[in-house]
Amino acid sequence: MSTPDRRYVITFSCPDRTGIVARISGFLADAGGWITEAAYHTDSDTEWFFTRQVVRASSLPFDAAELRERFADVARELSDQATWRVTDTGDTKRIVLLVTKEGHCLHDLLGRVASGELPCEVSAVIGNNEALRGMVEAHGLPFSYVPFPPPGVNGDARSAAFDEVAAQVEAHDPHAVVLARFMQILPAKLCEAWAGRAINIHHSFLPSFVGARPYHQAHARGVKLIGATCHYVTADLDAGPILEQDVIRIDHGDTVADMVRLGRDAEKLVLARGLRWHLEDRVLVQGNKTITFT
Amino acid sequence: MSTPDRRYVITFSCPDRTGIVARISGFLADAGGWITEAAYHTDSDTEWFFTRQVVRASSLPFDAAELRERFADVARELSDQATWRVTDTGDTKRIVLLVTKEGHCLHDLLGRVASGELPCEVSAVIGNNEALRGMVEAHGLPFSYVPFPPPGVNGDARSAAFDEVAAQVEAHDPHAVVLARFMQILPAKLCEAWAGRAINIHHSFLPSFVGARPYHQAHARGVKLIGATCHYVTADLDAGPILEQDVIRIDHGDTVADMVRLGRDAEKLVLARGLRWHLEDRVLVQGNKTITFT
Amino acid sequence: MSTPDRRYVITFSCPDRTGIVARISGFLADAGGWITEAAYHTDSDTEWFFTRQVVRASSLPFDAAELRERFADVARELSDQATWRVTDTGDTKRIVLLVTKEGHCLHDLLGRVASGELPCEVSAVIGNNEALRGMVEAHGLPFSYVPFPPPGVNGDARSAAFDEVAAQVEAHDPHAVVLARFMQILPAKLCEAWAGRAINIHHSFLPSFVGARPYHQAHARGVKLIGATCHYVTADLDAGPILEQDVIRIDHGDTVADMVRLGRDAEKLVLARGLRWHLEDRVLVQGNKTITFT
Amino acid sequence: MSTPDRRYVITFSCPDRTGIVARISGFLADAGGWITEAAYHTDSDTEWFFTRQVVRASSLPFDAAELRERFADVARELSDQATWRVTDTGDTKRIVLLVTKEGHCLHDLLGRVASGELPCEVSAVIGNNEALRGMVEAHGLPFSYVPFPPPGVNGDARSAAFDEVAAQVEAHDPHAVVLARFMQILPAKLCEAWAGRAINIHHSFLPSFVGARPYHQAHARGVKLIGATCHYVTADLDAGPILEQDVIRIDHGDTVADMVRLGRDAEKLVLARGLRWHLEDRVLVQGNKTITFT
Repeated sequence: MSTPDRRYVITFSCPDRTGIVARISGFLADAGGWITEAAYHTDSDTEWFFTRQVVRASSLPFDAAELRERFADVARELSDQATWRVTDTGDTKRIVLLVTKEGHCLHDLLGRVASGELPCEVSAVIGNNEALRGMVEAHGLPFSYVPFPPPGVNGDARSAAFDEVAAQVEAHDPHAVVLARFMQILPAKLCEAWAGRAINIHHSFLPSFVGARPYHQAHARGVKLIGATCHYVTADLDAGPILEQDVIRIDHGDTVADMVRLGRDAEKLVLARGLRWHLEDRVLVQGNKTITFT
Repeated sequence: MSTPDRRYVITFSCPDRTGIVARISGFLADAGGWITEAAYHTDSDTEWFFTRQVVRASSLPFDAAELRERFADVARELSDQATWRVTDTGDTKRIVLLVTKEGHCLHDLLGRVASGELPCEVSAVIGNNEALRGMVEAHGLPFSYVPFPPPGVNGDARSAAFDEVAAQVEAHDPHAVVLARFMQILPAKLCEAWAGRAINIHHSFLPSFVGARPYHQAHARGVKLIGATCHYVTADLDAGPILEQDVIRIDHGDTVADMVRLGRDAEKLVLARGLRWHLEDRVLVQGNKTITFT
Repeated sequence: MSTPDRRYVITFSCPDRTGIVARISGFLADAGGWITEAAYHTDSDTEWFFTRQVVRASSLPFDAAELRERFADVARELSDQATWRVTDTGDTKRIVLLVTKEGHCLHDLLGRVASGELPCEVSAVIGNNEALRGMVEAHGLPFSYVPFPPPGVNGDARSAAFDEVAAQVEAHDPHAVVLARFMQILPAKLCEAWAGRAINIHHSFLPSFVGARPYHQAHARGVKLIGATCHYVTADLDAGPILEQDVIRIDHGDTVADMVRLGRDAEKLVLARGLRWHLEDRVLVQGNKTITFT
Repeated sequence: MSTPDRRYVITFSCPDRTGIVARISGFLADAGGWITEAAYHTDSDTEWFFTRQVVRASSLPFDAAELRERFADVARELSDQATWRVTDTGDTKRIVLLVTKEGHCLHDLLGRVASGELPCEVSAVIGNNEALRGMVEAHGLPFSYVPFPPPGVNGDARSAAFDEVAAQVEAHDPHAVVLARFMQILPAKLCEAWAGRAINIHHSFLPSFVGARPYHQAHARGVKLIGATCHYVTADLDAGPILEQDVIRIDHGDTVADMVRLGRDAEKLVLARGLRWHLEDRVLVQGNKTITFT
């Protein structure tokens, strides 16, 4: 869906009942709102209702702040358990990227941001390795190196490194923290602090091959497709809500090195799609799953 | 989307304006209607609005006939150009299949109907060849043989054969006439009589390889993917509104015979998906295109 | 690859060394053999070499029996660890199908056999439920009902049922025993007796969702693609060598029932492809993996 | 297929006969050659045979020059119509990129070259627009601007511009001239001069939507998948031998702008795959088709 001019995006969820659509669309119609996208979903397990509505900003006689105020009344009326948000596509979103040495996802995202394909600006790239500084600075973006202790060394040094990363990230108050092949497991307190904002790309078709070296695991198992998964980070390793997945066909002739090379294309696409949907407020989380209004 | 119990399906389109969703959802909410699916689309070229809404029959205090009556008022109020329909999933839909000698699509559809996957019953299978009689009768269904003159012989004999087919088809007043690899080009008057109901499967990724022997054309061109297209039949050969398409990868080692074999799987899937969407009233036609609310 | 007329298919493997291709192709060339397909693979972990060669029967001055005798000398000369086989496409292969109640894979395979797409004849269909008898007999094939004790009841009754199945299967000495959604776990001794011949279709993208109710597991995890896996049966549940896999995209709106319906198409295709490759001697097993010369 | 250390790649074709594989593999075996990849194809229409063989350089007692000399004798012996080539993966290949304003394919290829994924170096990027200079120079590569007359203006000015492009390209004697969304139609004499080396990416699934604005054509036709095609450039517009194709699913909600955005991912992948195969000597051309030994 293209959004050529300024829009307000409303996302809303509450326990299902009759009349929700009527109430929300009636509210918007009464204000003269021109709806350009509308999507609905009711989860059959929990009986919760979810919607995403996009309205042309110019069709409403008030601004985003007043829309929020007025919509709050509608939401309260519909349910005291309602969760909702109104965002304005005129507000630029900020993202922070965390990287290590593998540069393909970073290169891909920087290209998409530069071409205007992703509706955001990159506030910072933080690396626990200097390898990708050049790529970042060539795009005129700030790169910050935060050294980490070697793998296996835990405790205070690692904790301090994460505190430094957290401080730098928070300084930008980003809409998304993207782990673009960042080879460190986030501590539980950061998972919590960044809940619903920290997005990881895992190089397997989850739940297969959780954890380290998934292509080696895939090669050992003899699968015929390899995959990639974009998910929100939670304290449970590689088990957070999935935004997007895809696969690539391989055959018996492909070595682990071939899988690594081929898999990069799946990783790039899956991360870019998941991130775009997140930034366009197309993703609603329910328990350990996502509703993706694409 | 599963539809476990009885539903009413409303499809509606008219020139876009504000308040359509509010009016329709308000109407349903006022009647206590429980909406289980709702989808919207506005075509940016023509500025027409399209919607499909599914309501639990048991949630309304009136039956389908009265829903139609009441909705007619709503539609009239919204636009004097509105097109709409209300169908009842409790009414069994009928289809008629036209075949020649290739049995894979027929076999596939009969299996899907028998297992309850397609919401319809097969009223009749009409063949211009006796080859598939056995397969049809093994399913306990009537097979009717209507002989056609050999290819190249046109005029009265062909016209009479089509008149016979048309008479048999009309006797069942079917919701869909499926050309399941029927090797005859429908005359213009049948295209018109069955507009929006005659569904063909063409064994290429249209608009590539219109007409006869598309796999031979594909082989001669050296394409790397072959495809299949399910479309509504119009007087313009292989140019009607497309319901669904898909492709299968081939390589230089595949002969035309291999393509024929591999392509069958694409044909079966694409026809089955297109037909299911048609029978579930998920397909709205606009000019030469479809809106498929899947 | 199409094989329109009679061919001999040679499959061969041994530890890799130089000169294997030269020796085999030299042997065939000296006999005037016309090679129509040739494929090679060296496994980089084990340094074993694998090949599959197809020769026009009419190009050789001797029959399959003599080809086997002569090739035995070549194989012995190349390695005392060599494994090889020569099959004749003129010999019809036999398969036995094991089923329970779900008929989509059975229906699909019977259609493919009837149309000549799968190079085999169905010797028997054995069911632990009467549900699919009609479908089988409509194809003019024998259906044998072997009752099993209810789930949870193990021990002698189950063992006796499997003995009966085994006796019936062995009476046909089949080239493949296909578990076409057979809802029983084979005992270890049958896994061993049918090693390399028993082919199962599992309704998930293995190694995800091993065991019972994989679509329920997939729904609970919130994956964005569901899959199917065709594998050789081993004593380790759903962990045997994989012949083929594929996936189908789903979204948040799909219930478990939708997944079951959509997944059937993946199951049918994946089983049909895996079985065809097996019957065309395209699959070589190495440890827990397959080389599939497709 | 990974090629971690130095290899010689032999490609060979001639009219089919018995004994070709034996002669070539015997020649290599006699010299102690360790074959790491071997693929064969016989075209059933023309009865021509094609092969690609990869040999470890270190396994042969002579260098590439002597391999060429010796293989020439083998080739001559097999057929006086034989076409063959021996390349050395130790020789770095050069490519020249032609671009206009759309930077996504360029950005993607530069990333792949920088990461070592494509076995080549970029000798130059030539643009008929200054838009992409910055991207090229950020990679430390030379960008050359060659102004072209506006669309519609043909004759001497355009001819002179192409002469300038040709002169710059020839100065690098490149193994591939990649039209990475270069918005000019090559004159016939350049098509001829660069036959088998000029590679174009066309943003449609050819042969559908030849020529200008294929996404507009696709939108007008209402297709359900859009595609991209990588092909060798010939004098016949968008009709040269196809190296690779792929598609992406769209729906009725996607505008032309959405197609442009989504299609970029197909274009990048298809061009990168086709170019890699070309650079690894995996592509043999026969008439208007390719054999791609992937």
